[in-house]
Amino acid sequence: MTSTPLGTAIVTQVAIVVKDIEAAIAAWSTLLGVPQPNVIVTDTVDQAHTEYKGRSTPARAKLAFFPLGQVTLELIEPLGEPSTWNDQLVAHGQSLHHIAFQVKGMQARVDELTEHGMHLVQRGDYTGGRYAYVDGQERFGAVVELLEND
Amino acid sequence: MTSTPLGTAIVTQVAIVVKDIEAAIAAWSTLLGVPQPNVIVTDTVDQAHTEYKGRSTPARAKLAFFPLGQVTLELIEPLGEPSTWNDQLVAHGQSLHHIAFQVKGMQARVDELTEHGMHLVQRGDYTGGRYAYVDGQERFGAVVELLEND
Repeated sequence: MTSTPLGTAIVTQVAIVVKDIEAAIAAWSTLLGVPQPNVIVTDTVDQAHTEYKGRSTPARAKLAFFPLGQVTLELIEPLGEPSTWNDQLVAHGQSLHHIAFQVKGMQARVDELTEHGMHLVQRGDYTGGRYAYVDGQERFGAVVELLEND
Repeated sequence: MTSTPLGTAIVTQVAIVVKDIEAAIAAWSTLLGVPQPNVIVTDTVDQAHTEYKGRSTPARAKLAFFPLGQVTLELIEPLGEPSTWNDQLVAHGQSLHHIAFQVKGMQARVDELTEHGMHLVQRGDYTGGRYAYVDGQERFGAVVELLEND
């Protein structure tokens, strides 16, 4: 599948931006009948090298992950700004934020997706990998997250 | 898992509302490297018994489904109004609309989810089954679709 722009057709994550992650974790945990996951806080900008709209940003987020089979449900509470997480929460309220795919060769993927009408809005590193959000709202109707683990 | 409010913890569908389903199908098909699915039009209200906010509605939608492993990516172009599909498109533009779960015992699930802060916004029938959208935006950050096949 590496000859396609994305290189995969398997969705691995669906994410929601929320105002209060602890409250959302409790609600989803009860709904799904699964244990409450731990809250993870994204790294500070010196470690995560977070960029939003091409500029370094101190924005962070609290994250929680529910494994639901092939797909992980991710909850995201924005901390600080500017970020795609915070902008969406302000503009649209609590809402689905992105679907994610695992990729190989992040920069090449981002470049190729640009040719298909998706543009990079935010990127950053985490322990063992990196992410990029590409905005495909106009052509695809959604933001897509690319995840690359080393 | 039937003792939990939802009765399942497996996401089976992620859906996006779009303005032009043919254009969105072409874009996603290229992105994912998969064949273009057919467009399905939902049944008329006399067959689908579509209700939105407790009232019968003539609203319909064009649908297309991409099988992406455990999860199906659904594209939805609203036809007519009022519907949850059209309201979201007008209010928020093209965007992720819901995540779906397969359930058994639709009415009992809807009643139980109401107790957990999700309220029924739209329901209808399709050949071989029925659906309900329950709005959990305030507590869960997303609309959830329940699907029940006979």
